[in-house]
Amino acid sequence: MSASLASGVLAGDVRAASRLMRRIDDEDPAATADLQALFPRTGRAYVLGITGSPGAGKSTLTDRVVARLRAEGRSVGVLAVDPTSPFSGGAILGDRIRMQAHASDPGVFIRSLATRGSLGGLSRATGDCIRVMDAMGKDVVVVETVGVGQDEIDIAQMAHTTVLVAVPGMGDDIQAIKAGILEVADVFVVNKADLDGADRTVRELRQMLELRHALRAPATDHDRRHRLKARAAGKPAEPPPPSDEWEPPILKAVAARDEGLDPLMAAIARHREFLERTGQRAERERARARMQFLALLRSLLLQSALDRLEAEKGRLDEVALSISRREADPYALAQTLARQLAT
Amino acid sequence: MSASLASGVLAGDVRAASRLMRRIDDEDPAATADLQALFPRTGRAYVLGITGSPGAGKSTLTDRVVARLRAEGRSVGVLAVDPTSPFSGGAILGDRIRMQAHASDPGVFIRSLATRGSLGGLSRATGDCIRVMDAMGKDVVVVETVGVGQDEIDIAQMAHTTVLVAVPGMGDDIQAIKAGILEVADVFVVNKADLDGADRTVRELRQMLELRHALRAPATDHDRRHRLKARAAGKPAEPPPPSDEWEPPILKAVAARDEGLDPLMAAIARHREFLERTGQRAERERARARMQFLALLRSLLLQSALDRLEAEKGRLDEVALSISRREADPYALAQTLARQLAT
Repeated sequence: MSASLASGVLAGDVRAASRLMRRIDDEDPAATADLQALFPRTGRAYVLGITGSPGAGKSTLTDRVVARLRAEGRSVGVLAVDPTSPFSGGAILGDRIRMQAHASDPGVFIRSLATRGSLGGLSRATGDCIRVMDAMGKDVVVVETVGVGQDEIDIAQMAHTTVLVAVPGMGDDIQAIKAGILEVADVFVVNKADLDGADRTVRELRQMLELRHALRAPATDHDRRHRLKARAAGKPAEPPPPSDEWEPPILKAVAARDEGLDPLMAAIARHREFLERTGQRAERERARARMQFLALLRSLLLQSALDRLEAEKGRLDEVALSISRREADPYALAQTLARQLAT
Repeated sequence: MSASLASGVLAGDVRAASRLMRRIDDEDPAATADLQALFPRTGRAYVLGITGSPGAGKSTLTDRVVARLRAEGRSVGVLAVDPTSPFSGGAILGDRIRMQAHASDPGVFIRSLATRGSLGGLSRATGDCIRVMDAMGKDVVVVETVGVGQDEIDIAQMAHTTVLVAVPGMGDDIQAIKAGILEVADVFVVNKADLDGADRTVRELRQMLELRHALRAPATDHDRRHRLKARAAGKPAEPPPPSDEWEPPILKAVAARDEGLDPLMAAIARHREFLERTGQRAERERARARMQFLALLRSLLLQSALDRLEAEKGRLDEVALSISRREADPYALAQTLARQLAT
């Protein structure tokens, strides 16, 4: 029965794909066999991330981008991982009706992820759903996320090209958004650019990007902090970036009036060419594989450890109660469970 | 040497606490022995979460709340887990100077968390830092978070009382913020209530709270979706809540002018009494212990599994490369590693 979902997905069957994605969203272990069967047939779709804070107009922009991709003859999957999105959270508020322009287009497959499991399941589920759409044969998978919080940053890193959507007049918020996401955005769009302050927002983004060289290259937060400190102390700047470094463009758009979409699509295409020319596409694939493997491993490990814990020490809630009463030592417990794995 | 940090923390030594928290933030394994030594001496502090989207004025409100707590004679720890906050991310932009009102008050200990590790380390680090402040003898630990994203929601659940800060005129954003955080907020504050639209925001929040009964009680997202569907289809409503259910107040404030703070402090005190009267404080302690144990277990397990993986299959990056080339099967690899734990 499981095998039939995978073969349905490979045949492009929307109902099979929907059912599998629902299982993924429900963290149903039955999804794993299908995902495993699909895996060798994935890796072809181009993954486009669209991220930005609530109210930035991401969904409208996504809608317009999807229309352009369709006009180019590409098949598209849209995955909304965003409680704001009319694709997903909107449903809670009863306005799922907004933005159903593509509902009748069989070349567009739209699904939202509701998973809010506390086991870090969101990035795992997102990776799995991207693979389902990929295996269905979608040319492009658009992933829409809020862009704040670690999970969302992990998810943005699953994309080949990440578009950050900002809006004018957010003041300090501009800075806030990018504190985390700055390092993973490839194209910046100031949406609602007909509002006052659009040019100021562009300038602010440009200033943030100047900090990006200091933020980007090295591996750890620790390094990064030290470099920022050096910078703040007026130490010499980093050497200029190598010529195969991408310079993220900052564009303006009014998605609601379909303005600024051509330059955006061109920038996305340019970034795609850049990734392929420099070999960075393969590097991103590897980073994505790493991320998805870690997410998968993390959730399987935790489940195994909890099964073992429950077999040996009783239900997790009882263990938590002993910990909260300071009768059990969580560090010792966790170390024992982890050590059992290491030997 | 490690033991000396723990004993320093227990003696209230700010430098020892700072050093330990820096180790936690750097994910330095040397922190574990100290945390383990401190653990039996934790569980006394009251944890107050202050959450809301960027630009809501959380930091100013936090500042005012801290001033009130100090006026009541309580010692306070402030933990900023928010790239927006002048306490933390502000540093990147060079405005750490903003809001140093409490810098010279030895009864207030302020630290920010910069951790952005991709291994889900943020909630673990937050839990550990709360415990350090608790062990230092702080009466109240205030945790300031952005309130969007799964990590932030996990963190909000570590608090005894969670205050959600909203602002007028956010339109759709209001809905966005609460899609995830609604279920964990105990007190709502519309800050900047001198701006147009404050009453409308209060009304919108009230409408959201009406949905809360449908969202709150049961365990899984799956149940929740089904209940929402039933609701949308006009099925009969849930029975009324039991009388020991907390009705979250919706308050107005202008933190920058120190207005509305008395009702807020009263609401926080009322919620604290409610938790104690109904036995829900112990329940929250248990939920917090559960969350923190899972975060700890997850990060230790992942580390053990990666050590083993590297010993057996080579460096993670090489494994990721094979996966990205579809030469290795991530599901099979993860299952093998997890199964080794289960046996």
